[in-house]
Amino acid sequence: MFSTQAQVLYDFTAEPGNNELSVREGETITITNRNIGGGWLEAKNSRGEVGLVPEDYIEINQAKPFTSGGNAAPLDLSFFDSHMPTPASTAQTSNGNDPWAVFDSNASGGFSNNWAAQPEGTETGKTSSNAWPSGGQGHPQAYQGPGAEDDEWDEEWDDVKSSGGYAESEAGEGGAINRGGAHGSSMKIALNKFPGFSKSGPELYLLSKLPAKGTKLSVYTGEVGPVWAYPDYQLDCVVADPKKGSKMYGLKSYIEYQVIPTTTNKPVIHRYKHFDWLYERLLEKFGSAIPIPSLPDKQVTGRFEEEFIKMRMERLQGWMSRMCRHPVVSSSEVFQLFLSYKDEKDWKMGKRKAEKDETVGVMVFSTIEPEGLPDLDLTEVEQKCEQFNRFTKAMDDGVKDLLTVGNEHWKRCTGPLPKEYQRIGKAFQNLSSVFISSGYEGEAVLTDALTAAGKTYEEIAQMVAEQPKKDLHFLMETNNEYKGLLGCFPDTIGVHKAAIEKVKEADKLVAAGKITPSDKITMSKRASTMSYSLQAEMNHFHSNRIYDYNRVMQQYLEQQVKFYEMIAEKLRHAHGQFTTM
Amino acid sequence: MFSTQAQVLYDFTAEPGNNELSVREGETITITNRNIGGGWLEAKNSRGEVGLVPEDYIEINQAKPFTSGGNAAPLDLSFFDSHMPTPASTAQTSNGNDPWAVFDSNASGGFSNNWAAQPEGTETGKTSSNAWPSGGQGHPQAYQGPGAEDDEWDEEWDDVKSSGGYAESEAGEGGAINRGGAHGSSMKIALNKFPGFSKSGPELYLLSKLPAKGTKLSVYTGEVGPVWAYPDYQLDCVVADPKKGSKMYGLKSYIEYQVIPTTTNKPVIHRYKHFDWLYERLLEKFGSAIPIPSLPDKQVTGRFEEEFIKMRMERLQGWMSRMCRHPVVSSSEVFQLFLSYKDEKDWKMGKRKAEKDETVGVMVFSTIEPEGLPDLDLTEVEQKCEQFNRFTKAMDDGVKDLLTVGNEHWKRCTGPLPKEYQRIGKAFQNLSSVFISSGYEGEAVLTDALTAAGKTYEEIAQMVAEQPKKDLHFLMETNNEYKGLLGCFPDTIGVHKAAIEKVKEADKLVAAGKITPSDKITMSKRASTMSYSLQAEMNHFHSNRIYDYNRVMQQYLEQQVKFYEMIAEKLRHAHGQFTTM
Repeated sequence: MFSTQAQVLYDFTAEPGNNELSVREGETITITNRNIGGGWLEAKNSRGEVGLVPEDYIEINQAKPFTSGGNAAPLDLSFFDSHMPTPASTAQTSNGNDPWAVFDSNASGGFSNNWAAQPEGTETGKTSSNAWPSGGQGHPQAYQGPGAEDDEWDEEWDDVKSSGGYAESEAGEGGAINRGGAHGSSMKIALNKFPGFSKSGPELYLLSKLPAKGTKLSVYTGEVGPVWAYPDYQLDCVVADPKKGSKMYGLKSYIEYQVIPTTTNKPVIHRYKHFDWLYERLLEKFGSAIPIPSLPDKQVTGRFEEEFIKMRMERLQGWMSRMCRHPVVSSSEVFQLFLSYKDEKDWKMGKRKAEKDETVGVMVFSTIEPEGLPDLDLTEVEQKCEQFNRFTKAMDDGVKDLLTVGNEHWKRCTGPLPKEYQRIGKAFQNLSSVFISSGYEGEAVLTDALTAAGKTYEEIAQMVAEQPKKDLHFLMETNNEYKGLLGCFPDTIGVHKAAIEKVKEADKLVAAGKITPSDKITMSKRASTMSYSLQAEMNHFHSNRIYDYNRVMQQYLEQQVKFYEMIAEKLRHAHGQFTTM
Repeated sequence: MFSTQAQVLYDFTAEPGNNELSVREGETITITNRNIGGGWLEAKNSRGEVGLVPEDYIEINQAKPFTSGGNAAPLDLSFFDSHMPTPASTAQTSNGNDPWAVFDSNASGGFSNNWAAQPEGTETGKTSSNAWPSGGQGHPQAYQGPGAEDDEWDEEWDDVKSSGGYAESEAGEGGAINRGGAHGSSMKIALNKFPGFSKSGPELYLLSKLPAKGTKLSVYTGEVGPVWAYPDYQLDCVVADPKKGSKMYGLKSYIEYQVIPTTTNKPVIHRYKHFDWLYERLLEKFGSAIPIPSLPDKQVTGRFEEEFIKMRMERLQGWMSRMCRHPVVSSSEVFQLFLSYKDEKDWKMGKRKAEKDETVGVMVFSTIEPEGLPDLDLTEVEQKCEQFNRFTKAMDDGVKDLLTVGNEHWKRCTGPLPKEYQRIGKAFQNLSSVFISSGYEGEAVLTDALTAAGKTYEEIAQMVAEQPKKDLHFLMETNNEYKGLLGCFPDTIGVHKAAIEKVKEADKLVAAGKITPSDKITMSKRASTMSYSLQAEMNHFHSNRIYDYNRVMQQYLEQQVKFYEMIAEKLRHAHGQFTTM
């Protein structure tokens, strides 16, 4: 009889209620069932615990006969070998590269190389780990930022055959390896599936002879400069009512959410992977022009599944609301499909259509029409781009700083601080007990008051520990959302930078006879269009930023005021119980 | 030419402004002037710094010739040898002994041995160092409890010849070695100068044939049981107006305080050593019956001399007020002398008289008269004693616990917590600066409000850091006073325990013909008197305790309420600056 041993390559933390098995890097486990499918294997660890492990997280050893006996015939492992994608695609891309650095030293011609080296979220994920402890390793009392894993990344579509292209990309990008925590909050731009992001860069659009396809996206002049065309009615939606479903005979479970658009008020059902599909489509289609923030795809390390589900739902809600607020995204066909498909058939057909959309990548700019706006010269285009880059980088630093500080504050408020108030409370009560034991007459007023004061400090301890959930949480969530958004800007701005470089080369290309003088004019005009698009997007960003920070700061301070008032009130009451002398 | 090298035996921290030199145990220093007097030598350390060092803190090496030359003739060091008291008298007494342990296992006849082993404050000082970091070593942000040293312990009386006996005891007890930090907060009971505390124990009083000398101290029956006779008018005094003086051509400086009794309102001038002299007299006279807390004789490690002087004055004030409040102490001749001597001559005569007082030690009980109170039998006496012992031990634990917690809270409030609020404040302001740099029109309301919120948190940081001085300080001071008082109880109760043991032996002594049956009756009666004295003292303690804790808790909570209200108010104002949307 054979047993298949495997080495664990990466730490994997089991999700509660999913029959998974937590394993640690370097651990040796025994494969007990390799026919699970969906990227999973069943394995047993040295303590005899059995559960599902993602196959990409382990390396199957050459088969060893059980030490208890059996023959030594080698096992054919080709099945595993051929199904084990290497983690290189995400883990090896440009570690240690600052995604912002590209633009700090971009005068040379090395741009497209730098661009190609942009990590697919890896770097951002790593940078962010300073501020946000990743799920499994963070302090249990730390703020639970986007942490580790996604519980449904591996599941195949029920209608997997509907989309060859997507199934492929899912294997490459949405695969198990993303659970390793390297998945950052910036956009996931895949070089191989994002036509505009080939090494040839944005010239696909700049020199495109094709007539523009798809809905026109207008840019107007607003009070603050170029702006998108905003709809009269601002779309929003509610993500609610998470329900647990399961498949594979209960081995794997998933959560279904209701998504209820404010337009129709008619709920549609979506699983996390549907959101992920939508994200992929939006990224593919708009990512060059609009920062599409990642989904909250990291698991929150709640000890309770309920907490996790609640947190994810809250974050999906935030993501959806942000997408709804975006005039370009929210009016897109694919987004409308997601929000208000009529039935399964409608959904499937819409999906297929969206996946075949060719106006993706830089070609999105071909649909943008600056209405009544004069062409910008290259210097202006470049200046705007530089300005946005400086701003987004500075804000990224500011937001990360606030997150770091907030996280430390969270830890203190939920850890040592309430413990200290509790000890103060206990010390008062303890002294009160001693006083009671004195046998001295007539000190009941003092001992009662002292006991009450002690209890008050214990109550304060609890209030302190619970407060971050009431205020700091939202401040952290908003800043975390912004961290995600800002993490997309190096990519978005990068496209513009690359276009500028190309336009700068135009004279040379004309001289070399590679393009015509008319092409050069077209290129310059199109760079101007791209700049208007970027300006409209920045103005959208700024207006949202002002709204969001105004709201979250108000909320934070309001709760803080309540908190301190409540403490003062409690202490006032405790004070009143002592005798006035 | 010769230089005299010396080894430093104990750490010594120089007091600011006193021309002293800090030295560390084990350090080698060079004596530069041995003719300073007053227990001091002038020395130079390896860094060339010169200053005064207490001679008891160092050990003079056998003279070594300068390495640079000179002959090798030995130097006569007999002068130093004969003037260097060993630290044994304080430092070697029963290290590691729990002062309370005596009473936990006192049934055996080993009592008087245990008693003799009572440390002269050494042990208590050590125990307390858990809760109160000693001056020179404590966290700079820690609450500055009674720490290390006394700046005037070494100075001779201007009228040193007036009292041979005291001058002797000053050399032995008040000498330089007390600066080493071993001086605790409990009573300093010197075996050699405290007649009642010889190995013969309290039988000096129990079997005394002498007629009682001195003012009668009555014990009456009050509402709560036996009580001292309280005066109609409660004495108090103000310690104020510290002034710096100096002597030895400015080499040594000291502080003079005004002490203004509420009775005469006429200030008298006293230096610290005068307070110390008073303490010694009170301890000698009343220590068997009344806990006489140590003076605040440890230096507070303020970085500024002013802070130190202020703190010491505050504590001398507390000590004096406590003594004033005690009916027996405050009406004593020596205390009255201290508070209201007419002139230098009056003071010197009074001092001499006080030092010759023979009704000291256990003999103080001979002046106590229970008025109209029935004799107590030994069982009752023993029960009361046990009860007081249990209570004072429990309260000692409770007070120490509160001090420990308070000290930690102090550290947090003055260290990491305000730093964190400051960082939050900076993060908000930083984000505001970034927002200002956006170039986007019309966000001045947000950025102004965000900057204001940031500044508010910086203000809160400062409030947090300054708050302990406003509330926790008094809570700590009061508890520290009580720690000192409670530290005296093992000694005070010990005298009673010893007396009880003696009375229990009375039958044997009668049988052996060592005492008469009439002596036995006298012993029992006197033990009853001692018990009334102890009960009166406990009732005094309880009544003061209730008053003190009521007052300090009210003060603490009142300040806490103000503090939290102020924070809420500041945040409310910050909140109001954001746009309502």
